[in-house]
Amino acid sequence: MRTVYVIGIGAGDPEHLTLAAIAAMNRVDVFFTIDKGEAKSDLAGLRSELLARHVTRPHRVVVAPDPPRDRRAAAYADAVVDWQGRREAVYADMIDAELPDGGTGAFLVWGDPALYDGTLRILESIGERTPVEVVSVPGISSVQVLAARHRLILNRVGSPFLVTTGRRLAAGGMPAGVDDVVVMLDAHNAFAALPDRDLDIYWGAYLGTPDEVLAHGDLHAVRDDIVRIFAEHRERKGWIMDTYLLRRRLPAGSR
Amino acid sequence: MRTVYVIGIGAGDPEHLTLAAIAAMNRVDVFFTIDKGEAKSDLAGLRSELLARHVTRPHRVVVAPDPPRDRRAAAYADAVVDWQGRREAVYADMIDAELPDGGTGAFLVWGDPALYDGTLRILESIGERTPVEVVSVPGISSVQVLAARHRLILNRVGSPFLVTTGRRLAAGGMPAGVDDVVVMLDAHNAFAALPDRDLDIYWGAYLGTPDEVLAHGDLHAVRDDIVRIFAEHRERKGWIMDTYLLRRRLPAGSR
Ligand SMILES: C[S@@+](CC[C@H](N)C(=O)[O-])C[C@H]1O[C@@H](n2cnc3c(N)ncnc32)[C@H](O)[C@@H]1O
Ligand SMILES: C[S@@+](CC[C@H](N)C(=O)[O-])C[C@H]1O[C@@H](n2cnc3c(N)ncnc32)[C@H](O)[C@@H]1O
Repeated sequence: MRTVYVIGIGAGDPEHLTLAAIAAMNRVDVFFTIDKGEAKSDLAGLRSELLARHVTRPHRVVVAPDPPRDRRAAAYADAVVDWQGRREAVYADMIDAELPDGGTGAFLVWGDPALYDGTLRILESIGERTPVEVVSVPGISSVQVLAARHRLILNRVGSPFLVTTGRRLAAGGMPAGVDDVVVMLDAHNAFAALPDRDLDIYWGAYLGTPDEVLAHGDLHAVRDDIVRIFAEHRERKGWIMDTYLLRRRLPAGSR
Repeated sequence: MRTVYVIGIGAGDPEHLTLAAIAAMNRVDVFFTIDKGEAKSDLAGLRSELLARHVTRPHRVVVAPDPPRDRRAAAYADAVVDWQGRREAVYADMIDAELPDGGTGAFLVWGDPALYDGTLRILESIGERTPVEVVSVPGISSVQVLAARHRLILNRVGSPFLVTTGRRLAAGGMPAGVDDVVVMLDAHNAFAALPDRDLDIYWGAYLGTPDEVLAHGDLHAVRDDIVRIFAEHRERKGWIMDTYLLRRRLPAGSR
């Protein structure tokens, strides 16, 4: 049998690595990497830095190209699924070719493997063709860094919170029945189109990295600033990743 | 000025500590602890173990008793708020008495400080009376350990997930508009009363500790087993902490 670790390495801060992640990295023979192109080279840089700093045993790094993804496809979920089919083949081929029986491989994933990351899903999907024992190692997610930087608790006393995507927010507005909404994967500043007048936003980009930038305030008061900051930084660096919490202000005393 | 770190130490596994948490712990003069009684002594044990293993500079540990909490109060939110008023006084007094100007204190909190933990809220509330510079350091939460153990991704492709409490689930059933619901703070097995026939449950207790216990399956098929396991373990250890994901099975092809 072969073992594949899926290791969360945090969302940008090398200090967010856990002791368990370091221990797991030191049991690995082959680190598998998907090359996402130069736009994500900062992320690749973090991976290399962590390997150099923490892995003390001999290991190999295998890189495969990411299959191109059609971001303009009309049916988003279909496009994701097609792309995942091709991606699955890349993963299966790579593991079959490079990981001998009894060997241990790993994928180092951004943030936490349990949050909007496809690695675990792909490994499960290829399980029939390429059976591996999968071990998931949690990591500090971008949402947790966002909360820490703003000194936030994500929930309010006894209340729920929702984690959703920019696409969903753009399509449906603030979800019903919940006053605290974390938004990820928003390439288009969906917050800026919300009509709600009773929302605060807590926003962060490049969280945990030296480029980290934060903003917060009444949504309608700060949204234009955030849109501008977003555009400037994306222009300057070539890519941006941001996450935010939308929090409905509740009437005094209602909590 | 005084600095107070709120440091997430993970939900039970000492290996889930991050490098940032270790670095923060080594800047601390005074560790503040709230004594929650013998039921939580395993948690206190983790704290002591982490201090002994990772803190290399001289430090003090200050312990204050937790004010008693009326768990039977009719209005839950009111009871929590009253109790927090008393708790605030305990925190403010402790910091005022033990942390000199320019000093650095810390609270080591279970899991992540951003998830159903009151420490950040209390420090904000006492800010006028007892001003401190608060630094929040994220930690691996019980939800992330639950996901890792079951090799779960919390969201499905492009979809949201909700984090809520056992009390909410018991009062309102499965929330509308979301098919993936993480439940925390459930002392009464709220999952067992759900009528829904299309749910899977992924359950874990004492996650990350040597007592860890997991179960999963069709909710109606496994709920009685989980209720029994829950009761047996609580009986044996005197306390239990569990977390679970409820996931609605979607018609094939709909994802
Ligand atoms: C494919 S998801 C991966 C999330 C990751 N697994 C995690 O736990 O943070 C990518 C999204 O995560 C968020 N994200 C990841 N890293 C971030 C960072 N350093 N700063 C801000 N947002 C980040 C953004 O919303 C981005 O669109
Ligand atoms: C007051 S909240 C604190 C949560 C914590 N801040 C975190 O990030 O996990 C306590 C709840 O967290 C969950 N929990 C905490 N530690 C756990 C563990 N080791 N195993 C299972 N559930 C746990 C349970 O739902 C419990 O009722």
